[in-house]
Amino acid sequence: MPILLPGIRELIEEKANGDIMDILVEASTQDIAEILSRLPSSEALYVFNLLPVELAIDVFEELDIEKENEILGGVDEKKKIAILNRMAPDDRADLFEQLDEKHKKYYLSIMKKEEVEDVEELLSYPPDTAGGLMTTDYVVVYEWMSVGDAVKRLREIAKETDFVYEIYVLNRKDRSVGIITLKDLIMCNPDEPVSKIMKTRMVRARVDDNQEKVAALFSKYDVTTMPVVNRKGIMKGIITVDDVIDVIEEEDTEDMYHFGAAGNPPESYFSAGIFGTARRRMIWLLILVFAGFLSGSVIEHYSSTLQLMLILASFIPVLMDSGGNAGTQAAAVVIRGIAVGDIKIVNIWRVIGREFLVGALVGTGLACLTALRAILTGSGGFVGLIVGSAMIISVAIATALGGFLPLLFKKLNLDPALMSGPFLTTIMDVISLGIYFEIARRMMRLIG
Amino acid sequence: MPILLPGIRELIEEKANGDIMDILVEASTQDIAEILSRLPSSEALYVFNLLPVELAIDVFEELDIEKENEILGGVDEKKKIAILNRMAPDDRADLFEQLDEKHKKYYLSIMKKEEVEDVEELLSYPPDTAGGLMTTDYVVVYEWMSVGDAVKRLREIAKETDFVYEIYVLNRKDRSVGIITLKDLIMCNPDEPVSKIMKTRMVRARVDDNQEKVAALFSKYDVTTMPVVNRKGIMKGIITVDDVIDVIEEEDTEDMYHFGAAGNPPESYFSAGIFGTARRRMIWLLILVFAGFLSGSVIEHYSSTLQLMLILASFIPVLMDSGGNAGTQAAAVVIRGIAVGDIKIVNIWRVIGREFLVGALVGTGLACLTALRAILTGSGGFVGLIVGSAMIISVAIATALGGFLPLLFKKLNLDPALMSGPFLTTIMDVISLGIYFEIARRMMRLIG
Repeated sequence: MPILLPGIRELIEEKANGDIMDILVEASTQDIAEILSRLPSSEALYVFNLLPVELAIDVFEELDIEKENEILGGVDEKKKIAILNRMAPDDRADLFEQLDEKHKKYYLSIMKKEEVEDVEELLSYPPDTAGGLMTTDYVVVYEWMSVGDAVKRLREIAKETDFVYEIYVLNRKDRSVGIITLKDLIMCNPDEPVSKIMKTRMVRARVDDNQEKVAALFSKYDVTTMPVVNRKGIMKGIITVDDVIDVIEEEDTEDMYHFGAAGNPPESYFSAGIFGTARRRMIWLLILVFAGFLSGSVIEHYSSTLQLMLILASFIPVLMDSGGNAGTQAAAVVIRGIAVGDIKIVNIWRVIGREFLVGALVGTGLACLTALRAILTGSGGFVGLIVGSAMIISVAIATALGGFLPLLFKKLNLDPALMSGPFLTTIMDVISLGIYFEIARRMMRLIG
Repeated sequence: MPILLPGIRELIEEKANGDIMDILVEASTQDIAEILSRLPSSEALYVFNLLPVELAIDVFEELDIEKENEILGGVDEKKKIAILNRMAPDDRADLFEQLDEKHKKYYLSIMKKEEVEDVEELLSYPPDTAGGLMTTDYVVVYEWMSVGDAVKRLREIAKETDFVYEIYVLNRKDRSVGIITLKDLIMCNPDEPVSKIMKTRMVRARVDDNQEKVAALFSKYDVTTMPVVNRKGIMKGIITVDDVIDVIEEEDTEDMYHFGAAGNPPESYFSAGIFGTARRRMIWLLILVFAGFLSGSVIEHYSSTLQLMLILASFIPVLMDSGGNAGTQAAAVVIRGIAVGDIKIVNIWRVIGREFLVGALVGTGLACLTALRAILTGSGGFVGLIVGSAMIISVAIATALGGFLPLLFKKLNLDPALMSGPFLTTIMDVISLGIYFEIARRMMRLIG
């Protein structure tokens, strides 16, 4: 799409509205939104104003919130009212979440009363809960209706409703009691009561369920929409699978940032300023520097034995690295295992045991290689023995810790991915160096 | 659900079939599948045989392939035939992918001819392409039909088809030319031609598109199903959003494993054996150990200046860590930026520039802290100056490398996440130590 950009900018300058529309008519709403977000404000507004109102609303919903704000501020009041009243309720709530008080008040004052109530209801839920994800744009019927009644109702409201393929059945108290699909409706006899054909076994989310839990339910039950109910079972909205895909991407991005100890992610890579980025990363690095000083102290402590220091120094990096790397491997594997549900907190001992064994096996291999190098480079078999034993012990501890710490974090209700590679590497440095020098000191004393 | 397990096992022992069914009737197909996968073979088979055939097929599709194999081997031939002919085509192809030749041949011999052809067609596409993901279970109509004809056709086949909400319009040559939704069908006049109400602007996948590309299309265009066409535009199948969610999870798991240098992921955490796991992780650690030896050589090289070594030794860990950690942060951020499409290969210079600046800023902060510590612990201002300068330079190089290498990998058509934290940490160790000792050597020579 961006290929079109220079062409469009030329057409805007020439005010060749017909030609611009010829291009846009061929593009999807997402592609038009992408073009608008790459144009400078005034040109984006010019193009947006060319769009017929239906298409304009669809395109508007695809913009990011900053651009929505910009466009909404620039269009005339009639278009403002149309957009605000008719855009998807969940996207609208996300927009209002970011508005300043002045604009919020103004926009609410020109909207229809029922839409104002809808915004206020959706804003009352935290954005990362089922309530914050849901939309109020769905079809309900009541359990005493017939299939014919339901089809009639559907025809009446389908035009303004995006999600018509699952129809929710409520009882007299607005509790969600069942679900029918549009497929069932068109296949069944119109005289049959809805309550007879509805499926009562259905997955519901609670308004206060965390968005991660919602994503896991979608993934497990392979549904494309899910009803959201409050504490009393009263239906409040539905969540659609496209928003769930966004949640999954968001959560995975967060995992990767946490695991890289890079803080919380900004909206997109280039959207964050250099200074803000530096500040976010600095916090973790500073903490880790203090931990690095600890490793330095270990070296300092043993460096009084001058001779020892000199013999062992060249193996410091390989020992430090191997502990950190093996721990990072284990942490990556366990963090992902927790995220996809393979590993639960109750498995903690099984995980530690597995990881310790894997670490001992791997460590033995690395130890042989390192000892061999010590012998071949003339450091001698004795140094090889010291380095090798330190390697096995550090790597086994590192993998066990890499398995244990994410589960501990989970247990403490923290994000397991906060147990980052850099964090683990730095902890392991202290431990590996301590083990290394202590083994060396003892062995050397042993042989006098 | 697992809470029910002991209860069910007791009922199986008592052969209390009615009671078992009472429990299962309340559970979703996914939950029944979960129960079966936790029961020992013979008990799982016993429960499976109690299920009415329709439900049995739905549950069967939810099992993992190993369990499918086990169950299919145990049921009588009549049930085998029913399952094989009627299960979802994409799940069936996945099952056949894993069968040995003997079973494959036997099962194909008892299936309907058209289903055999379907299996053979789907198996002809690699599993990680659009062709490998798609199912052949969808509704098509032809462009010359009327809405009324289309509804009639739909009613005829809807019972055996899971995905009826998007109906694909083909031309005389079976090329996909448009799409209509079930909603449009029920809202329109039956006499209207399908070609008039169909949407011709639609997103299609090509059979040979990579599954990552397919997931990105779903995420961008917010669709729940997508038609798959071959090189000539002839429609071959559809991909459904639930399979796309599985793809996203699979790709993200792969990213995290690669980034932790833990090799390729197994099917689930506990499904991999200890030895296999150790072997997979060992490969990377061995490569990294060789790189660690390089760092050792740097120390060895400079340790001839005995005095220098002793002064600088205690700052080795903090310098090694900071370079590795800052590089890992940058890599995490850039890898995710590439995965979600924020960063493209053309942005490479912008990314390197940004990361270098962020690194210089962050490095300066860390340098001040480290120099301060050198002074406070009595190593003196001169050592502080050496360590501080080395810190700024290493961290800036580390972040620039952390930004550059994932993009280089991408350019080489490798997974950017292969530029793992451990890999980067180990490269940075060599660089950081080299910078550190070289600055020290020069500065010391300068003051004599």
